[in-house]
Amino acid sequence: MFTVTVRDHVMVAHSLRGEVFGPAQRLHGATYVVDASFAGPTLDRNGILVDIGRATEVLHALLAELNYRNLDEDPAFAGRNTTTETVAEAVADRLADRVRAGALGDAGRRLAKVVVTLHESHVAWASYERPL
Amino acid sequence: MFTVTVRDHVMVAHSLRGEVFGPAQRLHGATYVVDASFAGPTLDRNGILVDIGRATEVLHALLAELNYRNLDEDPAFAGRNTTTETVAEAVADRLADRVRAGALGDAGRRLAKVVVTLHESHVAWASYERPL
Amino acid sequence: MFTVTVRDHVMVAHSLRGEVFGPAQRLHGATYVVDASFAGPTLDRNGILVDIGRATEVLHALLAELNYRNLDEDPAFAGRNTTTETVAEAVADRLADRVRAGALGDAGRRLAKVVVTLHESHVAWASYERPL
Amino acid sequence: MFTVTVRDHVMVAHSLRGEVFGPAQRLHGATYVVDASFAGPTLDRNGILVDIGRATEVLHALLAELNYRNLDEDPAFAGRNTTTETVAEAVADRLADRVRAGALGDAGRRLAKVVVTLHESHVAWASYERPL
Amino acid sequence: MFTVTVRDHVMVAHSLRGEVFGPAQRLHGATYVVDASFAGPTLDRNGILVDIGRATEVLHALLAELNYRNLDEDPAFAGRNTTTETVAEAVADRLADRVRAGALGDAGRRLAKVVVTLHESHVAWASYERPL
Amino acid sequence: MFTVTVRDHVMVAHSLRGEVFGPAQRLHGATYVVDASFAGPTLDRNGILVDIGRATEVLHALLAELNYRNLDEDPAFAGRNTTTETVAEAVADRLADRVRAGALGDAGRRLAKVVVTLHESHVAWASYERPL
Repeated sequence: MFTVTVRDHVMVAHSLRGEVFGPAQRLHGATYVVDASFAGPTLDRNGILVDIGRATEVLHALLAELNYRNLDEDPAFAGRNTTTETVAEAVADRLADRVRAGALGDAGRRLAKVVVTLHESHVAWASYERPL
Repeated sequence: MFTVTVRDHVMVAHSLRGEVFGPAQRLHGATYVVDASFAGPTLDRNGILVDIGRATEVLHALLAELNYRNLDEDPAFAGRNTTTETVAEAVADRLADRVRAGALGDAGRRLAKVVVTLHESHVAWASYERPL
Repeated sequence: MFTVTVRDHVMVAHSLRGEVFGPAQRLHGATYVVDASFAGPTLDRNGILVDIGRATEVLHALLAELNYRNLDEDPAFAGRNTTTETVAEAVADRLADRVRAGALGDAGRRLAKVVVTLHESHVAWASYERPL
Repeated sequence: MFTVTVRDHVMVAHSLRGEVFGPAQRLHGATYVVDASFAGPTLDRNGILVDIGRATEVLHALLAELNYRNLDEDPAFAGRNTTTETVAEAVADRLADRVRAGALGDAGRRLAKVVVTLHESHVAWASYERPL
Repeated sequence: MFTVTVRDHVMVAHSLRGEVFGPAQRLHGATYVVDASFAGPTLDRNGILVDIGRATEVLHALLAELNYRNLDEDPAFAGRNTTTETVAEAVADRLADRVRAGALGDAGRRLAKVVVTLHESHVAWASYERPL
Repeated sequence: MFTVTVRDHVMVAHSLRGEVFGPAQRLHGATYVVDASFAGPTLDRNGILVDIGRATEVLHALLAELNYRNLDEDPAFAGRNTTTETVAEAVADRLADRVRAGALGDAGRRLAKVVVTLHESHVAWASYERPL
């Protein structure tokens, strides 16, 4: 199995509802350093699983929708807490949609799964893995 | 599948018995930078797999039992070499015990596995993965 | 010259005023991974420049004032943009105040300067260095 | 399951054939920071999965075959693009050959798989995972 | 004193002339992870030393001149070894030229020095620091 | 000014005397990830400040004297606490001795200073800088 990962980041504000979150119930924010991993069993005739340049662009375009925003006001997350886990899932789902829509070209058809990891600090991170 | 990881560290002395260890048979020590990963298929109604703050506290409390100690004198490791692999397993097992005892609250019931990685330097690390 | 550095982090929301900031004029946020460095020419009789544990606690307590907050509403920054540079300066100034007030004990008297670095992502960071 | 990983690096020149590679069709180069992970279900009587020192030496010897070379002239890659994915696969295959030939001693028999990750920069990396 | 640093990378081929270089006399390559630091004593009215976005673009444009190339064929380095030190100096000099030409706007006038660090691997890096 | 840095590591046991150290008064240990930086104003005719390969070997040989040892029993530290600061100073002093003795060849004469940084964990490190 091959895996290719590209890294980017996004800077957002948000607040979290629920006593479990303690002071994180207040409006605050995070830099998420985002790793998007694509996995599949075979390479194409060029010897690539996915084009790293293209994967980087796809991830960057997708994160631009979230970047420099207050996630509390993003309709896509209405009624849901934008925890690191939830945002990782949303990024992975959107990435899967784009891959299936052809954003990575034919390479997308050979991919078996995607994993998105959001590093919220140097000491905590969360991932969501899903099939493609 | 969701995964949440928190990082802490522990500083211990130990020696290793067996010719394979060469100079590491002498009493020496290590900083283990410890990553504890919790994995499970679903989030709770708050949108979390585990509370990152709580997971950090659980890991910290568990590592405090080992921190600033000579593992050669720790009865828990009597008769065993405290290799990075062995200590990773011990930390993972203790973490599993605490999760099952409710240390992470209801979240613990949704968890499927735990992975503990001990970085012994910038160029070597070892993990132990086990079901919960 | 000796230098001791400790690392912690803080998660804040803020917006930046001025066309130069483009989309960062919107309310967003950041995780700042914060490195506080203390420098001085000599060690005390224990062989330390500053007690790393104590320095960690002082930094943590100081960052707690900022953590999980919207800096746009923090009177300390009223009328000023909370750029990474500005927040680094504020953290360094507060750290200097605490050191002079004895938070690091006698060690504080031997210190010559403090440097605070805020990493806003894996690809950008800012520092402020000042004498003590 | 236990996993042990060791890190080294290799510096190579190469060019990539195919329009998809854009400017990377020109002769250029890369530092690959290489992580070799060995996984297996049990430890030996010394408490190790593999000897970290020995694994480090095996990886280093293997990378020496590639280090400071132009991969375009390496017969092992004739007719193939030396993408990060392809080189990761080649390193994993060679590592598997050496393990089966006894380079890691008896430990090699307990290993179930090997994963080789090549970091081509701080923002992109590729892995190849294979059974042993 | 304030310092702002932005990070990017460049992938090049080259060879080094001189017995001291041993196997690095062969054509090989490197990924240089490049940190460009700008230092100055004061912030502008927006609270910035330099615009991080703009500094990132300036560095990226400058590195594009080197990226995906064989430095042995670059006239700018004719007759000189493209060691990590030499390339760091060249990047710093070009950056200084651009800053003086206004690439960072008025902010450039407040800058006192620039430091460029090229990481050639996880275990070796070189810097060049110069006044502005 | 040019600076070249090479990284290695060392694993030691030790205990610290003095109430300020709390639990670190017990026998424990540390991995120190060691960065040795050499600085000087000019490059030689080969375009190098120091030979990175040779600097790596010199550092490695020097650290071998400390590696896999209990510093409490090392006569070189008799009567002194082996704090991170103290060990950084010792490594820097030994490195300076070797440089002056010609370990880095003629390059050593052009060097102005050396800085040694010991990372005791991912959240704490200490440096010692001295002239050459």
